[in-house]
Amino acid sequence: MVRVQGGKVSSISEAENELLSADQLAESWRLACRTVVSGKVSVYVPAISTVEAPVLQLESLAVTIKPKTSIRTFSLSVPPASLTDQRADLQRVAEALQQQHGIANARADLPALSSLREALREGDWNIGVGLRGEEIIDAYPGAVLTPVGLAVDVGTTKLACYLVDLATGKVLAAQGAMNPQIAYGEDVMARLAAAMADPANALRMQEVVVKAVNDVARELCATLKLETRHLLDLCLVGNTAMHHLLLNLPVRPLALSPFVSATSSPLEVDAATLGLNAAPGAHAYLPPPIAGFVGSDHVAVLLAAGFGEDNRTRLAIDIGTNTEIALQVGRRIVSCSTASGPAFEGAHISHGMRAAPGAIQRVTITAEGVVKLDIIGGGPASGICGSGVLDSIAEMRAAEIINERGRVIKGRPGVRLQHDGLPEFLLAAGSEGLRDVTITQQDIDQILLAKGAIRAGIDILMNHLNVKAQDIDDINIAGAFGSYLDPRNAIRIGLLPRVPLNRIRAIGNAAGAGARMMLASTEARQRATALAEQVEYLEVTVYPGFQKYLAAGMRLPAG
Amino acid sequence: MVRVQGGKVSSISEAENELLSADQLAESWRLACRTVVSGKVSVYVPAISTVEAPVLQLESLAVTIKPKTSIRTFSLSVPPASLTDQRADLQRVAEALQQQHGIANARADLPALSSLREALREGDWNIGVGLRGEEIIDAYPGAVLTPVGLAVDVGTTKLACYLVDLATGKVLAAQGAMNPQIAYGEDVMARLAAAMADPANALRMQEVVVKAVNDVARELCATLKLETRHLLDLCLVGNTAMHHLLLNLPVRPLALSPFVSATSSPLEVDAATLGLNAAPGAHAYLPPPIAGFVGSDHVAVLLAAGFGEDNRTRLAIDIGTNTEIALQVGRRIVSCSTASGPAFEGAHISHGMRAAPGAIQRVTITAEGVVKLDIIGGGPASGICGSGVLDSIAEMRAAEIINERGRVIKGRPGVRLQHDGLPEFLLAAGSEGLRDVTITQQDIDQILLAKGAIRAGIDILMNHLNVKAQDIDDINIAGAFGSYLDPRNAIRIGLLPRVPLNRIRAIGNAAGAGARMMLASTEARQRATALAEQVEYLEVTVYPGFQKYLAAGMRLPAG
Repeated sequence: MVRVQGGKVSSISEAENELLSADQLAESWRLACRTVVSGKVSVYVPAISTVEAPVLQLESLAVTIKPKTSIRTFSLSVPPASLTDQRADLQRVAEALQQQHGIANARADLPALSSLREALREGDWNIGVGLRGEEIIDAYPGAVLTPVGLAVDVGTTKLACYLVDLATGKVLAAQGAMNPQIAYGEDVMARLAAAMADPANALRMQEVVVKAVNDVARELCATLKLETRHLLDLCLVGNTAMHHLLLNLPVRPLALSPFVSATSSPLEVDAATLGLNAAPGAHAYLPPPIAGFVGSDHVAVLLAAGFGEDNRTRLAIDIGTNTEIALQVGRRIVSCSTASGPAFEGAHISHGMRAAPGAIQRVTITAEGVVKLDIIGGGPASGICGSGVLDSIAEMRAAEIINERGRVIKGRPGVRLQHDGLPEFLLAAGSEGLRDVTITQQDIDQILLAKGAIRAGIDILMNHLNVKAQDIDDINIAGAFGSYLDPRNAIRIGLLPRVPLNRIRAIGNAAGAGARMMLASTEARQRATALAEQVEYLEVTVYPGFQKYLAAGMRLPAG
Repeated sequence: MVRVQGGKVSSISEAENELLSADQLAESWRLACRTVVSGKVSVYVPAISTVEAPVLQLESLAVTIKPKTSIRTFSLSVPPASLTDQRADLQRVAEALQQQHGIANARADLPALSSLREALREGDWNIGVGLRGEEIIDAYPGAVLTPVGLAVDVGTTKLACYLVDLATGKVLAAQGAMNPQIAYGEDVMARLAAAMADPANALRMQEVVVKAVNDVARELCATLKLETRHLLDLCLVGNTAMHHLLLNLPVRPLALSPFVSATSSPLEVDAATLGLNAAPGAHAYLPPPIAGFVGSDHVAVLLAAGFGEDNRTRLAIDIGTNTEIALQVGRRIVSCSTASGPAFEGAHISHGMRAAPGAIQRVTITAEGVVKLDIIGGGPASGICGSGVLDSIAEMRAAEIINERGRVIKGRPGVRLQHDGLPEFLLAAGSEGLRDVTITQQDIDQILLAKGAIRAGIDILMNHLNVKAQDIDDINIAGAFGSYLDPRNAIRIGLLPRVPLNRIRAIGNAAGAGARMMLASTEARQRATALAEQVEYLEVTVYPGFQKYLAAGMRLPAG
């Protein structure tokens, strides 16, 4: 599915009339396979329409989860009702729980009462029940099931879902999916704008993301021969916009200065209220966002990385379109958010591509300007992936092909002019019908903007807390980007402060890990809430000298 | 709107096609004003189609309500958000509540968060808030409002709604309405059958009763220039079938032997979950039903009548299609339900009518068989209302026009034969184009069946607890019937045991009074829950000698 933004294409086919909604057609969405192009057209290809299945980072640093939950399941044999024993269903089940499992004062809210009523009769008075504390939240005929829950990292682009055994804290299955809200805008601000433009958009975004979670949950449950109606607990983390859209909270105050969130408290809501498929009485737990641009996913990252557990000097960075940075010094943790843009995610890079066969992933350039490439799969180069871009910039700087301000120096080996007169550097000459792969001045500018924003955030936090590079005990890079980042080059281009390389570690999808911890442990929830309260949010754009920090952050140190 | 049950009528008119649903037309519902009758027809006129507006008993014994609720309202002036104060809305409001009203740790659940967000901005940071304990459940721009709530007695036929000031416990306004579920059946069993026949019926019955409550609530609120969205709390009582249908709980186990309810615990649900219009975070409180045929309305009656507060010997009777009876002796309270049928409500009485102009309301018959009538409005008699029927039977028995078994004795003055050969007694000869008003053998049989069922219930309870008539300190008659009941005649026909007349009192809509008490007082809720637990339910149909009690109950003592 693509959106035709301009140019002449064939009229809408029968298949499209059938498969696309009136709204979609009105917004110029088309099926690429049914649309004939006549002349120059401008087409938007949403991430969801990319050919390859999305690679989602589901792994993360090994967090050991000590489950501490009030969720349990029990098998029950209940005495049948009769004219001489007309006790209500609930009272009958409560007494059986007391007698067979020593659980006193069991109770049930409305949705669980219905399931209880039907399970007792379908199961011939032998049922399995799921409890949260003393509250019955699920009942079904037959044998008892393992207590399971779902942890979800609701990313702007991707969802990562984990099916967790609540008794052991172990991940039973994991799966990712694209966030279908992408049809309403690629980044957070576009989605907030869509929500403000029309409340129907906000409602629809709520529905589609919930449907996506339900779909993945159903597939995950199926691998264990379970149904989503047996999910006894859920924990969802995300940036503050995702949090608000998921809850259908008004977003205008979040989108406009001074960018205020509705709450910075945790929320526990009936899963059914949000449309999430789960056990009748299941709750969905949403840890607190910290501020408008620092969400509960950041809280989850800090929790998984063990922030707040010691007094060391620690940096955590979650690189994305918005990059959240936290600096811990002693008992203080200060966080900020910087608008780093999508360059580090590979967007807007001329020959950018995913780390797939044909992608340049390592680049070396000798002082003489001789380029050596490491191409995934060994074949000819068809593009360049994130690590290749970082390498290129570090090496080009070392070989003095670009200067401190990132300007490509005309006349240096490999440098040539593009059609528009701006210089570019040739990495790989086209062969076998493939284009040349180059790094353009525009690519470098994009990367430097992103790097500048992130480094400015780091430097402001360090200045704010009076920390020097050598004081930093560790730097934790969360998210997909951290996994392919070469720490040496990250320092060489000045993305990170100059620390010993072994202090830099990629922690993978730490937000997902934190979500799993909170799912399985009330103690982790309390720790996360305490963390969220402890974290001081710093608005970097009003920090004295912000522009100076930004300019300095964009500079490329001598190789 | 009437339902044509047999006979020939004109075909469906255009107006009916427009105004009635396909379902209604399929079920032979017609508009009486558009239907021409040709010959004998049988027509069902539902209570909802009676010409006069329903007279609902809203008054009840004067209960003094000492409010004891955690619901409060406050006026707040909140510091506006800015780039140097980006605290979340909730945290900002919580701090204002702490500083301006000394309320610590205020919190808000999802629906209230949305209202908070909008109220702050519409009210230019000056808002009114409604709290339940420390939880914000309502927020609105501008000045603070009185805390109000709604108490509802959901009767099978009628709804009684009370708008209550939660700060004083006073009734601000009261209004009744018909229960629109009547379209699905006049009595509880018919509605349960409809719900079992098709889950869509159950859903629809839930919706229509909620809509009726919402409609009355809106009118009540309007009288105080309020909207339903400012209702901060609700309390709803009803028989167990009404309770289950309102909550959309499965009813099959309630409708079929052994008639088991889903729960005998109180429920507190989000008002919005049920579709009830109220403040964003308002709850609806549903006190516990006691058993399948003894509902939370009975609990409310006992609460209002002060059962459980002393050790006296007391009887409470709520007469309806099902009649609930409770007998308190010392610390014990035993309740039962008897299928008394609708005769005491005036249904199936040949010349029965409401207590309106033209209705015979008092009857005296001399030993010689001379009839003296007291007719409402003084005009000619057009029918007979409930008190007139009771009088007639008591007087006919005293004048030996009927015998102990209720047989009309042929040959006695005023006795004549109907077309079908069964005897009837002439009360008023027709004049001015009006029919004769008579009491038929069938009428007497209907009344005796009802009386027999109620008296059997009373006698079984008395036998069960070893109570004699002279031990009874008071008899409390709840509901509309109690108000027009002549205590002397109630004893004369053997409906009630022989106690001094001053021990019999009508307590009006005691269920409504109990609902108001529970609405305004958490202490009353606790007392009601304790009462419901304390009450022992007795299934009279399996009590030894039930048939004997029934036969004895139907007998008419010598006048």
